[in-house]
Amino acid sequence: MKLIRHGGEGHEDPGVMLDDGSLIDASGEFLDYDEAFFACGGLDSLKSWVDGGCIGGIRLDPETRLGAPVVRPSKLVCVGKNYADHAKEFGGEVPDEPVLFMKATTSCCGPFDDVVLPHGSTKLDYEVELALVVGRTASNVHEADALDYLAGYTVMCDYSERKWQKEHCGQWMKGKSADTFAPMGPCLVTTDELKNPQSLCLWTKVNGEKRQNGWSGDMMFPVAFLVSYISKFMTLLPGDVIATGTPAGVGMGMVPPRYLSAGDYVELGIEGIGHIRQRVIPSV
Amino acid sequence: MKLIRHGGEGHEDPGVMLDDGSLIDASGEFLDYDEAFFACGGLDSLKSWVDGGCIGGIRLDPETRLGAPVVRPSKLVCVGKNYADHAKEFGGEVPDEPVLFMKATTSCCGPFDDVVLPHGSTKLDYEVELALVVGRTASNVHEADALDYLAGYTVMCDYSERKWQKEHCGQWMKGKSADTFAPMGPCLVTTDELKNPQSLCLWTKVNGEKRQNGWSGDMMFPVAFLVSYISKFMTLLPGDVIATGTPAGVGMGMVPPRYLSAGDYVELGIEGIGHIRQRVIPSV
Repeated sequence: MKLIRHGGEGHEDPGVMLDDGSLIDASGEFLDYDEAFFACGGLDSLKSWVDGGCIGGIRLDPETRLGAPVVRPSKLVCVGKNYADHAKEFGGEVPDEPVLFMKATTSCCGPFDDVVLPHGSTKLDYEVELALVVGRTASNVHEADALDYLAGYTVMCDYSERKWQKEHCGQWMKGKSADTFAPMGPCLVTTDELKNPQSLCLWTKVNGEKRQNGWSGDMMFPVAFLVSYISKFMTLLPGDVIATGTPAGVGMGMVPPRYLSAGDYVELGIEGIGHIRQRVIPSV
Repeated sequence: MKLIRHGGEGHEDPGVMLDDGSLIDASGEFLDYDEAFFACGGLDSLKSWVDGGCIGGIRLDPETRLGAPVVRPSKLVCVGKNYADHAKEFGGEVPDEPVLFMKATTSCCGPFDDVVLPHGSTKLDYEVELALVVGRTASNVHEADALDYLAGYTVMCDYSERKWQKEHCGQWMKGKSADTFAPMGPCLVTTDELKNPQSLCLWTKVNGEKRQNGWSGDMMFPVAFLVSYISKFMTLLPGDVIATGTPAGVGMGMVPPRYLSAGDYVELGIEGIGHIRQRVIPSV
C-alpha cells in the first residue's frame, strides 16, 4: 500500500496511490496520517478500505500537489555517516556506532516543493536517504523485533547547509533545519509491500547528471539495528521519521566541492518507492 | 500571568496560577496551551478571562499533579556552553557563537515528575536552565524585536547522560533525549510579568546541597540574541521551547565528577518563576 497526502501546503488531505499510479483521496474516511492514525490501527483500516475498492474515494488530478506522506512528526532523527564511502568523503573517520542528529520538523515539505536557499546560504548540498516511518511507540526494542515497529518507507532529501553544519561552533542541526530542507515522498510504502529495506538502489541527479548511486545494502548499520539503537536513547512515536544516511556523491565530497545554486534541479529516487524532485530557489 | 497545566500525564488540562499561588482550572474556556492557542491570540483571551475573575474556573487541589506548562512542542532547541564558567568546566573552549542542539520532545514532562534513569545510564547529570516559550512564528527576526516573539519563561532541567552525550560517536542529542529528561514548570510566566530575563538567579540543589548558583545576566549570548540567532537557522513555531544554557556547577564539572543516582532529589529554581523538583528513580 502506498500512502500519499495531497492539497495545499499545510492543508493536506490523506490519500493512496494505487498500483496503476492513480491517486485516490481518502479524506472522506480518514482525518490524516498523524500520530493518532498510526497509533490507533489506521493502517489496518486503510487497508480494508483500499481492499474494498476505496468506496467513496475521489480520483485526484495526477498533477495535484503532494505533501510529505505523513503529518509533521514529533521528531525527525537522522543518521550520519552510515555508508562507509560517504563517511570517507565527509571527513575520513568511520564511526563505531551510529552518529545521530535531528532536523527541525519544520524542515519537512512535499516531494516536489521547491527547496529555498536560506539567507546567507553558500554551501547547499543534497543527500538522498531512505526514510523510515515509525508505526508504533518504540522504546528499547530488540533488533530482531525492530521492523515490526515500522509503518513503512519513503524517500527523503536531507538538504544540508555545509557551512552552517560544520563551521559555526556546532552542532550539525544548524545546517540541517531550514524550511524545505526535508522534502519527503512521493509516498509512504508500507512494510508489507517493501519487505527488504537493505536491497534498494538509491540515487541523486542534479540537473540530470547522476551524482549519487548507492545501495542500501551498504549501510554500516542496517534499518533494524538503527531502530533498536535509537529507541535506547529516546522513545519513538507513531509517525516519527528516521533518515538512515546517505551514500557517497554529495557536493561537499567533490574536488572542488560542487554546491547547489538557485535554478538547479535535484531529483532523488529509491527503487520500489519512487522519486522526488526539487528546484532550488532563492529566498524572497 | 502564570500558565499551568494540570492532571494526569498525557491528559493535562490548562489552568492558571494566581498571585496568591492558588491554581484555577481553565479547561472550560480553553482547549490547551498548544501551537494553535499561541498562534490564535490565546494569551490575550486568557488574560481577559483572568482579569475578569476566571469566571467558571474551578479552584484546584494545591497538590494536583502539574504537567509541563505547554503541550509537547514541535521542537525543543537547546543552547550549549552559554555561561563562560560552565563552558570551562565542560571542556575548556568558549564558543564564538551559540552551540545548538535538540532534545527529543518526548523528553518533556511535568515539573515534579520523577526522572527515570534509563537502562545502562551511569552518568546522569542536571542542568538548570531558563527556558523560553515562543509566542508566534519566528523566522529571521532581528534581535531588537526578538522578545516580542516570546510568550514567556519557565524553568527546565536539561537532564543529560554524559556518557551518551560525549562518548558514543556523537551527537549530543543521544544523551539529552530520554523520557523525563526535560521537566518544565511549575508555570509559564508571561513576558509582561517578567520583563528582564537577564537579571534572574538560577540554582540547583541535589539532596539539599546547593550545586548551581548562577545569574542569567552572565549568559554570553542573551535571550534576544538567541531567539534572533536560532530563527536564522530554522522557523520557530508558537509553543516551541528554547533552553538557554546552564551555569557552572554540574556534576560532570566536579573533581571527581558527581553523577546522580536513584534516590537522589534534585531541586531547581529561577527567581520570579518558581522551582521544580524531581526524584531520580531506576527504570522498570
